[in-house]
Amino acid sequence: MDISTGGPPIVIINIKDAMMLDLHREDRLRIKKGGREAVVIVDIGESSRAVKQGTIGLFEEALAKINARHNDVVEVFFENKPISIQYIKEKLEGRKLNNPKIVQIVKDLVADRLSEIEITYFVSACYTNGLDEEETKSLTMAMAETGQSLNLRKHKVFDKHSIGGIAGNRTTMIIVPIVCSAGITMPKTSSRSITSPAGTADTMEVLADVSLSIGRMKKVIEKTSGCIVWGGALKLAPADDKIIKVENPLSVDAEGQLLASIMAKKKSVSSTHVIIDIPIGREAKVSDDKSANKLKRAFEILGKHIGIKTKVIITDGSQPIGNGIGPALEARDVLWVLERNPMRPLDLEKKAVMMAGLIFEMAGKSKKGHGEKDAMQMLDSGKAHAKMIEIINAQGIHCKYPGRIKIGRFRYDVLAGKNGKIAEVSNFVISKIARIAGAPKNKGAGIYLHKHAGDFVEKNEKLFTIYSESRQKLKFAVETMKSLSVVKITKTRCSELSAG
Amino acid sequence: MDISTGGPPIVIINIKDAMMLDLHREDRLRIKKGGREAVVIVDIGESSRAVKQGTIGLFEEALAKINARHNDVVEVFFENKPISIQYIKEKLEGRKLNNPKIVQIVKDLVADRLSEIEITYFVSACYTNGLDEEETKSLTMAMAETGQSLNLRKHKVFDKHSIGGIAGNRTTMIIVPIVCSAGITMPKTSSRSITSPAGTADTMEVLADVSLSIGRMKKVIEKTSGCIVWGGALKLAPADDKIIKVENPLSVDAEGQLLASIMAKKKSVSSTHVIIDIPIGREAKVSDDKSANKLKRAFEILGKHIGIKTKVIITDGSQPIGNGIGPALEARDVLWVLERNPMRPLDLEKKAVMMAGLIFEMAGKSKKGHGEKDAMQMLDSGKAHAKMIEIINAQGIHCKYPGRIKIGRFRYDVLAGKNGKIAEVSNFVISKIARIAGAPKNKGAGIYLHKHAGDFVEKNEKLFTIYSESRQKLKFAVETMKSLSVVKITKTRCSELSAG
Repeated sequence: MDISTGGPPIVIINIKDAMMLDLHREDRLRIKKGGREAVVIVDIGESSRAVKQGTIGLFEEALAKINARHNDVVEVFFENKPISIQYIKEKLEGRKLNNPKIVQIVKDLVADRLSEIEITYFVSACYTNGLDEEETKSLTMAMAETGQSLNLRKHKVFDKHSIGGIAGNRTTMIIVPIVCSAGITMPKTSSRSITSPAGTADTMEVLADVSLSIGRMKKVIEKTSGCIVWGGALKLAPADDKIIKVENPLSVDAEGQLLASIMAKKKSVSSTHVIIDIPIGREAKVSDDKSANKLKRAFEILGKHIGIKTKVIITDGSQPIGNGIGPALEARDVLWVLERNPMRPLDLEKKAVMMAGLIFEMAGKSKKGHGEKDAMQMLDSGKAHAKMIEIINAQGIHCKYPGRIKIGRFRYDVLAGKNGKIAEVSNFVISKIARIAGAPKNKGAGIYLHKHAGDFVEKNEKLFTIYSESRQKLKFAVETMKSLSVVKITKTRCSELSAG
Repeated sequence: MDISTGGPPIVIINIKDAMMLDLHREDRLRIKKGGREAVVIVDIGESSRAVKQGTIGLFEEALAKINARHNDVVEVFFENKPISIQYIKEKLEGRKLNNPKIVQIVKDLVADRLSEIEITYFVSACYTNGLDEEETKSLTMAMAETGQSLNLRKHKVFDKHSIGGIAGNRTTMIIVPIVCSAGITMPKTSSRSITSPAGTADTMEVLADVSLSIGRMKKVIEKTSGCIVWGGALKLAPADDKIIKVENPLSVDAEGQLLASIMAKKKSVSSTHVIIDIPIGREAKVSDDKSANKLKRAFEILGKHIGIKTKVIITDGSQPIGNGIGPALEARDVLWVLERNPMRPLDLEKKAVMMAGLIFEMAGKSKKGHGEKDAMQMLDSGKAHAKMIEIINAQGIHCKYPGRIKIGRFRYDVLAGKNGKIAEVSNFVISKIARIAGAPKNKGAGIYLHKHAGDFVEKNEKLFTIYSESRQKLKFAVETMKSLSVVKITKTRCSELSAG
């Protein structure tokens, strides 16, 4: 049919054939040609223009599997639906799933044996009925074990993860060189952005290759003791991608699945120690202390169950962290921090150093309470910067000088409309505008924040600059910006003015 | 794209264009050509063979809407997702939906503005979180009001419904002629089979046309005071079909949706009085007293809320009702009952007469306790039979003599392997074999039961006969039958033997 949608393989059957054979949508058929075969999911074609009676229409995924072409004759057999559909129904009915059932669901998911409707029921059931500790453990281990894995044969392997929703917040690219420069192993895999202006993988890609194979990744780690690569290229815990695909339309994110998704990837790169950052903010993924503490506890319990020492920190997620938003602007921030450039964003540096310090203490490199100082020492000594250059070179260099990073040539400065104090910078709106300007696809697009919440500004002082690689996208971003509240300035009181 | 799957209109966008435009699966686009436009749901094509960069692929539903052809140039605009997606999320999170929100969801559902994944989340949320009385009322009224309707301007309009799962049970085709022959109005719409060997519409079709328009249906009712037609042709409460489509893969059937689906259709044909039959049986949709009573109460409450007098009866659903299973065999049973033929199945007659009697009492045609006797009188007097012939003629006759109904010419008799008492006849297995033999698509296919549970049999006595229109299907049905337990015979004890 020349159609490929990246999902489970579909066969389209003419509605008349379907009635004759008592076939229904989502039924399964086994298609054979020569020695090859594929199990496909039935969809019914209501028009005879595409699929005539007596013929079937195979999507590309299925065509490839059996090596078939247009007008080939194939054999068709009935096939039972996967048993895991029954388990999904059980979960939907509120029953608890044991380990073998969860393993079966994940196996069928990874092997593309479940339709999107069936996966949606699974995600929905986990969302509304929740997953308990044991189920979360089973799901995590099943996800970790159904994909590729990296075995480093190290006693201690470190990892970190920040829960999303905060623009900027590119701590990973500072933490990895700091801790690796102290000899700690940190095989960091990161994601690309889905709905944000940049993921760590998008940002690192400004400086180096990130689409590495497991083999190349291992070589980089052997050489530098760390890496910052795109997890998507590695097929770690691939069930996750299929779950995310049906979660996106409703932005559903079940806690158990969130936990499993994050920790499965840590497990699959043989991490033994993980630090999890939960930023709290009105517009962050986690919006209040209570939810944050609940999630913290859930991470700690899961960590214990799957044998990963897990430290969870709860941080301020009320506004973007760092000045640059968008791959190139964020990458420049990171290099400025590592180079100790006076332009560097101190909020980003502070958070990264704090987290690196905790890793130093977990690794036994620093005494309790001394980690942060030791981490800062790695930055100030230039060792972290040198390590980053080493990692960039090992992964495949794109750029190592912040001055050479290409920032979008079309720009628009947004000025303060009045004197006052910045009460709020909206994560959500900043992200939206940066995306409209072209991020993350156009790496040079994004926003540079000249001011943060808490700063004082005078009328006509620059608040932020929008960058774009296209005049038209810039225009659209500026128009969108005008209809939204990006930065809220409150009139300053005298006491505050004197403090400022 | 020459593809039509009967769902919401889909546009396939090349993955490169999608990245450039920040488009994701399930996003919406508005497509314009000339004065016409259509809102379509985005799917991403991962291969460029079908949809090249700069082009889009429209499924037939969308092509028809804007009257476009291959290689036409169309305008494409971004479109927001329907607001009802937010309401579905709310339900998924366990919140209660108010009337306007449910109305919006149903409107978007009917207008094909929701994707299947989104509908699946709605169904799943209603299933796991349940719908309360008010939500069920809202859903029912919204479903009734979004489709076509029949306004009979009658003071009292009667209807009936049997919850499924029981093979045979073709009471409707006996009840309608009985009550209509007494002047009671009963505009009966029925469904075709989805997973059973015959629906009432499939069975009635053996005798008469069932695909009537609202207009023709009205004329039949004016003439005969009733009808037995296929609801699917009428577009009554069309939201239901779209819900059923995503329910089928997991056989999910949320109580609130079941209630709304049934009662919305009654409401849309202006029914004022309804009798609901809930058969209980291990293999029926409802398996125990407790669930049956809960469902009974829910029907009564919903009836009160939407202004339909609702009487619910709980009946025996432990085995098939009537002897014939499959459209032709069931239609013959019905005519035999109406003709008072000695071959008629008395269990089916008894149940139909009991239900018709209740309708007589609700209608004030009979004194309390006399309905059943009066209903039987209509049968015995031949008035019900005459009314059925009138209805058959008004709808468009296919056949009115039981002897002329074509039963499959390939048959297989199944004999008792031993003397004994029949402990059980499996609804589930009987249905499966009848379907494999060709029912409901091949109207003459099915099973004829010579014995029911409770009957005594001698070795080599006929238990049932399998009928098919094709030798091969019969063979397959017989093979399947051999691997399953259809009829369970227990050795008779002496006391029972003497009683027999």
